[in-house]
Parts: sequence; structure tokens; C-alpha cells
Amino acid sequence: MIYFNCDYMAGAHPEILDALIKTNLEKSVGYGFDSFTAAARVAILKACGLDDGEVYFVQGGTQANKVAIDRLLSRNDGVLCCESAHINVHESGAIEADGHKVIALPEQNGKLSADSILRYMEDFYADETNEHMVRPAMVYITHPTEYGTLYALSELKAISEVCRRYDMPLYIDGARLAYGLTADGTDVTLHDIATLADVFYIGGTKCGTLFGEAIVSRHKHILPRFMSLMKLHGALLAKGRLLGIQFLTLFTDDLYYRIGRNADRLAMQLKEGFLAKGYRQYIDSPTNQQFFILPNEEIDRLSSQIGFELWGPKGTTESIVRFVTDWSTTESDVTFLLSLLRPAPTPPLPDSDSI
Amino acid sequence: MIYFNCDYMAGAHPEILDALIKTNLEKSVGYGFDSFTAAARVAILKACGLDDGEVYFVQGGTQANKVAIDRLLSRNDGVLCCESAHINVHESGAIEADGHKVIALPEQNGKLSADSILRYMEDFYADETNEHMVRPAMVYITHPTEYGTLYALSELKAISEVCRRYDMPLYIDGARLAYGLTADGTDVTLHDIATLADVFYIGGTKCGTLFGEAIVSRHKHILPRFMSLMKLHGALLAKGRLLGIQFLTLFTDDLYYRIGRNADRLAMQLKEGFLAKGYRQYIDSPTNQQFFILPNEEIDRLSSQIGFELWGPKGTTESIVRFVTDWSTTESDVTFLLSLLRPAPTPPLPDSDSI
Amino acid sequence: MIYFNCDYMAGAHPEILDALIKTNLEKSVGYGFDSFTAAARVAILKACGLDDGEVYFVQGGTQANKVAIDRLLSRNDGVLCCESAHINVHESGAIEADGHKVIALPEQNGKLSADSILRYMEDFYADETNEHMVRPAMVYITHPTEYGTLYALSELKAISEVCRRYDMPLYIDGARLAYGLTADGTDVTLHDIATLADVFYIGGTKCGTLFGEAIVSRHKHILPRFMSLMKLHGALLAKGRLLGIQFLTLFTDDLYYRIGRNADRLAMQLKEGFLAKGYRQYIDSPTNQQFFILPNEEIDRLSSQIGFELWGPKGTTESIVRFVTDWSTTESDVTFLLSLLRPAPTPPLPDSDSI
Amino acid sequence: MIYFNCDYMAGAHPEILDALIKTNLEKSVGYGFDSFTAAARVAILKACGLDDGEVYFVQGGTQANKVAIDRLLSRNDGVLCCESAHINVHESGAIEADGHKVIALPEQNGKLSADSILRYMEDFYADETNEHMVRPAMVYITHPTEYGTLYALSELKAISEVCRRYDMPLYIDGARLAYGLTADGTDVTLHDIATLADVFYIGGTKCGTLFGEAIVSRHKHILPRFMSLMKLHGALLAKGRLLGIQFLTLFTDDLYYRIGRNADRLAMQLKEGFLAKGYRQYIDSPTNQQFFILPNEEIDRLSSQIGFELWGPKGTTESIVRFVTDWSTTESDVTFLLSLLRPAPTPPLPDSDSI
Repeated sequence: MIYFNCDYMAGAHPEILDALIKTNLEKSVGYGFDSFTAAARVAILKACGLDDGEVYFVQGGTQANKVAIDRLLSRNDGVLCCESAHINVHESGAIEADGHKVIALPEQNGKLSADSILRYMEDFYADETNEHMVRPAMVYITHPTEYGTLYALSELKAISEVCRRYDMPLYIDGARLAYGLTADGTDVTLHDIATLADVFYIGGTKCGTLFGEAIVSRHKHILPRFMSLMKLHGALLAKGRLLGIQFLTLFTDDLYYRIGRNADRLAMQLKEGFLAKGYRQYIDSPTNQQFFILPNEEIDRLSSQIGFELWGPKGTTESIVRFVTDWSTTESDVTFLLSLLRPAPTPPLPDSDSI
Repeated sequence: MIYFNCDYMAGAHPEILDALIKTNLEKSVGYGFDSFTAAARVAILKACGLDDGEVYFVQGGTQANKVAIDRLLSRNDGVLCCESAHINVHESGAIEADGHKVIALPEQNGKLSADSILRYMEDFYADETNEHMVRPAMVYITHPTEYGTLYALSELKAISEVCRRYDMPLYIDGARLAYGLTADGTDVTLHDIATLADVFYIGGTKCGTLFGEAIVSRHKHILPRFMSLMKLHGALLAKGRLLGIQFLTLFTDDLYYRIGRNADRLAMQLKEGFLAKGYRQYIDSPTNQQFFILPNEEIDRLSSQIGFELWGPKGTTESIVRFVTDWSTTESDVTFLLSLLRPAPTPPLPDSDSI
Repeated sequence: MIYFNCDYMAGAHPEILDALIKTNLEKSVGYGFDSFTAAARVAILKACGLDDGEVYFVQGGTQANKVAIDRLLSRNDGVLCCESAHINVHESGAIEADGHKVIALPEQNGKLSADSILRYMEDFYADETNEHMVRPAMVYITHPTEYGTLYALSELKAISEVCRRYDMPLYIDGARLAYGLTADGTDVTLHDIATLADVFYIGGTKCGTLFGEAIVSRHKHILPRFMSLMKLHGALLAKGRLLGIQFLTLFTDDLYYRIGRNADRLAMQLKEGFLAKGYRQYIDSPTNQQFFILPNEEIDRLSSQIGFELWGPKGTTESIVRFVTDWSTTESDVTFLLSLLRPAPTPPLPDSDSI
Repeated sequence: MIYFNCDYMAGAHPEILDALIKTNLEKSVGYGFDSFTAAARVAILKACGLDDGEVYFVQGGTQANKVAIDRLLSRNDGVLCCESAHINVHESGAIEADGHKVIALPEQNGKLSADSILRYMEDFYADETNEHMVRPAMVYITHPTEYGTLYALSELKAISEVCRRYDMPLYIDGARLAYGLTADGTDVTLHDIATLADVFYIGGTKCGTLFGEAIVSRHKHILPRFMSLMKLHGALLAKGRLLGIQFLTLFTDDLYYRIGRNADRLAMQLKEGFLAKGYRQYIDSPTNQQFFILPNEEIDRLSSQIGFELWGPKGTTESIVRFVTDWSTTESDVTFLLSLLRPAPTPPLPDSDSI
């Protein structure tokens, strides 16, 4: 069985596991005050090109979003995002549980546009009774998005500009950031992310660590008393050095980028293979998540040897499926998958209305 | 430098690390639906003697307390505990952040008594205007306590009985449970804990894992929709199998008890050494945390070669200190410490008023 | 100046004020344990035809929604409503502030349909990863809606049936219930509301009281420990009898219905007047709120002598406006307004795209 | 039956009721944007001597505390108060429900001391691990206290000074402020309160209005976006002018002080009567709440003709009782009560251990 279900099915990248093994018997103080964590902070800020930034490590993506957003919003504030945003759909109400409204705007290709944010802000401030409404006070986007798509640098700049005009922090969820940074044709670098966002996180869990995400703020003052807030949320790891060791390794010898490149390269091979066999994409993604429309018969046939995910409910004759690559995916995994894949039926199935 | 600061300074017990290494490249589904986690559940329920129980794994102790208490309490309910309870002092308001009042009662030796709970309940229900007050709706105790002390079985039974009389869940924070179960002279077993508590957690972080706690409920129905609540709190680990693998190892070949016994045995050697040299205990603990009153001069002298913690503010001439043992402490660590320790000054310092 | 801005611009209906004056010097116990409140409860339950119901009084509509929804939902639950629902738009995040997600579905004429609820529920329970999502656990509708429209009895029955199939409480926000019950052509009675909803509130503030809403539950057990929860929300009025006295008066001599009928009758005269002069409705409402599309020039002209509200932003040539009647509106108010209104320009303005 | 149970048993002071009657048919905009409310604001700020202050009106005391404290605290902050503080005991967890820990310190005569606050702050900031603890970030006191006692001006100044040293707002709950301002021997004026507190509220409900409290901030910027927060808490009254009208009347012709003086004067007569008959006070209060220790037999006897409250559980032979005066209490009420009261038994009962 070869698995393409998601990017967090294996343990850690071997270099990360080695680092954990080597340091296992060393003793250090808890809660991230150790020297590994200090070194990881330095490495990350350097990689981001931030002089006055700050880094905090938490265990998972929902936790990162929850704690950061809880800090960035006041009591009667909400966060703008698009409808498919992870915080709007797949975090079990984690943001609302802290008292904040998630305000979902329409999207295109999984992306929020500067224009729709701007219109919402203008309408809000034009409404004389807006004290009866939730103030939109920050913007949340993901890069890559939940559909694997990427913002262009110009799009990020436009969003960042609207945010700054309204004095709203821009927060970028980088659960799969590695795959975005190394995608073919992207013009967005880690420096750009670190400059345009006020706070973002560099995903570890889906990019090669056992667990862990690095929350980065552009300036130290943006996340005041953040460790105390992490503790309040149960997000302050006792053996904090585990996060430091893993992220120090990710940002040593370019490992974060090597992980991203491996997954993206194989995802492109996979995509080309599907297209060559005549399949349609559900959405065109340049990163490690690939979405296709397959006949149900083909889905059932592949499933006996290949792991992958149905995306949404099964259709009557064909369905959307997702294939994901990561650091542990090999060229032979992709070759094997493509060798199993039969050419798409001709003439193609009728359009996707049946899905 | 030899460290006795706390029980979470090293990585994982080697058997646990080995298990993680061996399984690192296996792929499995996320969020604890993997087979390792399933096996760990079975092993823990068997060790607890629970037929209808349930087990959930989270990453840390504050997280365990936060999520479990949030499930056990309704909106206008509070949790009874003693004043030194971890949830009352050292969790940065994690319980209140979810809307619940922590109602702290007086304590003795770090322990809450059935009597004080009973009196509080009687007073509450006797008050005809108690709809203006927070309903005490569950009881939280730690075993061992924050001072390393232990409840006797009779004390636990009495508390459990009061709780059941008032239909309140009893929750036991077992952050250091291993050290309680293996302490000399304790009459409390894991079966007792599992029978008397409605929900409790088996601590991993302070007892040999990299991280992780196992929340156990006496009956499946006690924690409804708990995974969704874990997700809401950012407490659902993507690579959930990491928790399963670690706890499966802890409950294989008696490892949890071996870890407890090593630490307790060395803690008793350490205690005898301090007493033999004429030092006073701050509190008499039968587990892996030992508290002494030392002259400041001796504290300063030891500190160059030994790591340990000041407990509270430094006194004018003497202070309270804590020494902690764990799985990684060796007999030679203790011997070395005791060899450095000078006999207590004679005549002894005046009483502890100066602290 | 004649005001049609909204239905809470004057004080109380004279019969209510009289009742307050007459009882002013009587002393009674606080927090709603007085005899006026007891009598009001009896009168309301009788009017509702509920044998086992319960009634609680709060001061305002947002408060009613907030406290009731907070009781009906568990921590990781959300409330389904339509997009224009008051709780989704105009309560400043009051529901989310208590930790609950407001899940907004599309609407028609300000109404939610049983079908859209059913589809959402089916999709939710079909999704195997729904523990990552907020469980839809109750349904919120308003009757009349924010646009003055009414559910037909068959529509309410269908919604109630879906709710019961999924064991979800149906909650009806009756801020303007009087105007719904007395509307021409409605087939929905107070008995229907009380039978089909699990909890609803009978609006006082917008229907003739100084302030106050009566939250009614179909069965006593549905809102456990509700007074304590009201207190927690700052919603328990010390001089609770003020609410009892007002609602007792509303449900004496049919006052609630007399208030509704006066407003609805005059709203229909107003509507006919506008239609007769050639104006278009924005939405066709059978109750005390009337929405028209007027040329900006006419809006400006009327504004010097008539108070009414712009509904949304001003358009370039024409805009939506709202006129509201209540117990204090008189026939001569409507006649005066219509006498000022000039006939709509001929040929009619182009369609409403310009708004 | 003559009632001394509490100060909110009757309706409104007749001058206030008159004002409501006179304005009943006037129409005005909602939510406190009306001219009555504007005038009440001006009158209150003038009475307080505040040039840059702000005033907001809410319906009740718990609501005032809840909304103000929610604004003054950040997410991981707590409020310091004394153990008998209303927010700690009798608000059903209203503060914790918003996520904030109530940190209760020991008290004397119902009062918190500057010293105990100072010690707590010093200890907190001396603790190097205080990111695991709730930051004390504001101070709450009541004046008069829950026991009717009063702070001396020097005590308030000392508390205010500690607060400013630590940049913590001082909040004063003035539910019964009128009775404090007019008490014999007090050296605290409304100007003092308004200068020393950062935010406080002027109680209406217990001082002559139907309902309502005026929250006053020393500077406009202290309570940003407060109306929106009020709305979020369900605390924004639709017919806001009702609050404006009542408070405008309270601060016209010295009514607030006249109400206070009447109640205090009669409370002193009542106290003298009890002392003259040989009864002991539970606590010596200079304001409208009077606490005595009475034999249970006398309590039972009086109860048939006089309303008053048992304070805490009934003792075996004697109990604590509370008598409260207000604007509606008359000299003949007190004379009648004292005429019923039998002299205390001689020799006096043994000391109050039996209570």
C-alpha cells in the first residue's frame, strides 16, 4: 500500500529524528527557555530577514491559529477570512470558543482578495450603527491555501496594504508553507511573507517534524505576554526544547526547502501523469496537494493499492479526490501510482454536474 | 552539573524513544485513529481494570485539565479544589478562560479533605439564594499533590463518596501518578484511582515520555464528543500515533511502574541523606519531589554543581528548596549530591519564621 | 415631525405605564420571585396553551437570545440561522462571545427553509471527519423576520420536524411577535409557536413595554438552572416585578393583540398608499415594517417632516427605506405621511440595479 | 408588614416615576443617543468634576461590573478583590464566564487594604515563573462595601496609589454609592471617587431608580468601543432614554443625595434603637445596611410584622440579621420596628461562637 492521503502520516524526517535522538539524554530547562529553542529562534528570524521579530513554538496548527488570533483580537473583534478557511470550517469552532466571530467572505480558488476585504471594511465603517456589529479587526489567509493554490506576491501586497490602511494585522497560516515557498513559478519568498504579514506561522507538522509550528511576529511588541497566553491555552510544552530541536534542524542545511522541493517535484510528476492520461483537475494546484476528478470505478480500483482521500461526498459516477506528497514520498511511489492508473474513459464523462 | 530541578528535563525514556524510532517511517492515519493508539487504549484500560472506560490522549497536563474540566462542567458551574491546586495557581487562568470559576478551599499537606468539600456543599445547598452563586459541580485533586504528598485510600474513598452523593464528578490530576503508585507505604493502586475517580489522567510528560497525558474516564458516556472538544481546544495532535506509541510502551513490561520505582527509591535515599545530615524537611513527601529547608550559604555552595529549585522566595538566612528525581536519575547522582552536602549547622538555625 | 423609524421610540403603552404607576409603592421581593411575575407566568403559559412550560423574563432581545442560546448549546455546538438573522449581524458577536459559532445559511425573503437545514444536517453527519467541525445543534429563526415577512404554518412545521428528527431545539426570536400574530392572512397562532418551538421569546420592547422579553420553554426541563445563567449574564433584574407587571398587563384584556393589530392595520394602509402612488416594495411584508424603494429626491423631501430609516447604503438615484408602525402610531400619522408623498415618477425609474 | 429586607423592594422614587410619565409619549432615537441621556451625562460629569470623563448607562449592577471588567482586562488578566466582593460571591461567575480570574484577597471589615494589594503585586512580579500565573491587572472594591462599611479617603488614596504604581485600573462598585456619600463622618466625596477610581459606577437600582447604573470613566479613552461591548453583553437598552431620564432626575435638585440622606439618617436611628435595647452589632456600619446579632426567638417574633434578612445560616440560639433602609423608608417605619423590639436578654447571651 502506498499512501498519498496527507502529509502527516509518517513520523519525522530522519534528520529531525536524529537530532532528537542525539539530544535525548541532555537535560535542559523547560517551557522553551533552553538553548536549542534560542538557537532555533535565531535561525528562523535570520531566514525571515527580521531584525525585531519574535518566534514562539506551539504543537499544532489549530493551536497556532487559536492562540495567535486570541492575542490579536480584542473582545468585540472578529477575523476576516474566506469561506474555505481552516479556521472557518475545520477547527471545531476553536476561534469562536475564545469569543471571536469568524467573518467568512467569498473566495476564488481558495483565495481571499484585497478587493473583497476593502469592500467589507468600507461598508462596515460607512454603517452608522456598526456598534451593533462585530468589528473586523484582522485578516486570516492560508498560503498555500486549503486547495494547494498560492497567492501571487502582488496579491499578498494588495491584501497587506488594505490591512495596514485599516490598522488590522494580517495573519498567514503557513501549515504547508514549505510547499508554497518551493513551488515552481511562485514569486513569494519567506522574506515576503515575513514582511507582509504581521504574524504568521511556519508549519512543521505537515512539513517534516513530529509536531510543531513556529509562530513568527514581525515586531516583538505585536504579541505581548504571549507565553502566558500560550499557557492559558494549554499550548506551552513542558519539554519545549523538542520544538526548538526540530525547528533548528528544519532551518539547518536548507532542510525546510529540501522537504518542500521533494514534495512539490513529485506532485508535479503526479499531476502530469494524471493529465497525460486524460483526467481533469478539480483545481490547478502548483503545490503538494493535487485534486482530480476520477470515475468512481477508477477510485475503487486504485483504492486497493493506493491511499488517497475523497474530497467531499462521493458523486454518482465520478468524484473529487486528493493526492498529497511530502518528504517521505519517493519517485517510485509516484511511478507506481501512475502505472496503476488507467487512461481516462473516452469520450470524457459529461461535465462535473454529477458530482 | 547534576540536575534535580524537575522531572521533565531530559527527553524520553530510552524504551519510548526506541519505539518512536522503530515506527518512524510507518504511515498511519491521523488524529489517534491509528492502531498504536488503539492498542495503547486497550493496555491502559486493562491496567485500570475498566471494562466500559475510555481513553483520550493529549499533549500536556494543563491541556488535559483544561479540556476535561471544560467537558465536565456546564456553563454556570465551578470546580472545587484546594488552594495550591495546579489549576488554581499555575495554569495562567486556563480554567477561567473557558468560563469556569475555580473555587479554592483550604488544604492540609497539599490535600483537600472530604469534610471540607462536604461542608461547602451543604452550605451551598442550604443557601436559598444560591442561584446568585457558582454551583460547585466537580472536584479536582492531584495525586501525588503539588507537594509530593499522597492521599490514603480511605481519604480518596471519602472524597469520592461525597462527590457521588452530590452527583459531582471527581477528577484526579495524575501528572506524577507513576510516583504515587510506586511510593513506599501507599495503599492506593491504579485500580483504585480508576474506580474512585470519574475522570483522571495518567501523566506521561513528567513520567518518561517526550510529552503526553492519557485522560481516562470510568465510563464511555462521561466525556461525550470529546475529540471534537479536544480539536476546539487545539489539543488534537495530527500525528496522534506519537501519543499511542509512547503510552503503549509505558504500559508494556511494566515500564510506567519501573520509572516510578526508580525515582521514588532514589528520592528516599536522597531524603535519608538530608535527614542524616541534620536538615529539616519543609513537608514530608513519600514521592519523587523532596522539600528541605537549607541555609542560604549551603544553597549557594551546592548550586555550582547541582541543579535544584528554590521553592518560593529566598529567605533571609535559610530557604525552602526542592529536589526532584525521575527515570534518568541514577544512584551515583544522589551519592554525588550527598557527598557535596555539608552537615547542617549545630545548633540548628532558629525556626523557620525567617523564611 | 412624525416618526416611523422603529417600534421602540416611545415609552410604554399607557395601560402598561398605568400598571407600573399603580404598583410603584408596593414592596416585593426581588429577582422575579414576586406575585406579579408569578401571575404573568400563568397568563403567558395559558395564552400559549402550555401545561408544562416555563417562562423567564429578561430585559432585551439580544439578552434573550444570548442567554437562551447559551443554555441550549454545549461548548462545541453551533446555531443554524439565515444570513440576515439578528444574531448573525446585529448583536455585536453576542453569541460568539459565549463561545458558540453562528452558522449562517442562505435565505429567501429573510426566511430559512426546512430543506436547507435538512441538507446541512445530512452533509454534516455524512462527513466522517465532522469531529473537526462545529456540530449544528439548534436552529434560530425570527418570526416576523428582520424583513417583516412571516413563516407559513406549514413552513414552521417542516422546520420543527427537521429539528426534532435531529434532536435539535428550535428557537424562535419573537422580538416583534405581536405583529406576526395579528397579521392579515397569517395561519400561525401563539399556540403554534409554543408547540413547534422548544424555546421562543415574546417580545415586549418592540411591542409596547418599556423593556422586557418573555422567554418561554415548551417544557420545564429544557432550560435547567436558567436563573443562575441569567445572573451570570447580568440578565437578572433586581426589581424583577417590573417585568412581571408589564407582561401581566400585555396578557390582560388582549393588549398584546390590540397592539399588534393597530400597528399592522396602519402598516397596511401605509403600504396601500405607497403602492397606489406607484412605488415599488423592496420586499412584501404583511407586518409593521414596510420597505419601499424611493427616489433620493423624495427621501430628502419627506425627511424634513417624517422620520424613517434608510435601509442599507444610499443608492445613486433611489434607495431602500423602511417605515415602521407601532402601538403609538395613529391613523392621522399615516394620513399625514401619505398626503406628503408625491406620486412616483412616470415612467418608473429603471430597475433597482442602481441601488 | 414593614419591610427592611433590602433597598430594591419598591418601584422608583416618585420624582423619577414622574419624569418617566411626563416623557412617555415623546419619541426619541434608541440606544442612548437621545437628548435625555446626553443631558444625564453632562449632569453626572459635572457632579463628578470630570472634564474628560465618559458615562455609559446599563441596567443592573452585575451587568455594570461584567461589562466594565471585561473591557478593562485583557484575556490573560485577573481582577483583585476581597473575599466578600460581590463579583467573587454573588454574581454567579459572571466575571469568570468572560474568561477572567477573580483573585480574592483577605479583608478587614469587608475592605481590601492597599498593603495587601501591594504585597500581592510584589510577590507576583518577584516570581520568575509568573507567566504560568494570572496577571493581576485591576483592582475591584465596593464603596460602601457589602457590609455597609466605608473606606476612609486616606485608604482610597493609598489603594489608588498602588494601582497607579502598577498601572492597574481601580474600579469602584458603587451599587449603594448614595448611602456612602451621605454617611455621617465620611470624608469621601463623589469628586474623590471620580478622581481616585479609573472607572466606577453610580448605583441607581438600589438608590431610587426602577433600574440602571451609570458607569463613569475618568478619561474617555479608558473604555474604548464600549457601546459595542455593551451590545455584545446584551447590556445596551433599546429604549436607552429610560436610563437617561432616570439619572437626569437623580442628578437634578440633589435627589441622589436626598435619597442617601433619608436612608442613612433612618439607619442611624435604627442602629441607636438596637444598641439602646442592648443588642450587639455584627459589624458597625455607618450606612443604610445594619447588621445585628439577635436571639432566634426575637427573630421569629419580629418576623410576623417586619421583613428583614437572615445573614448567613441560622445559628443555634442567635443569628445575624440585616435591616436595610432606602428612599421609601419612613421615620414611622423605624419607630414601629423599635417599638416591637424587646430589650436584649440579660445577662447577654454568650459570645457569638454559637452562630
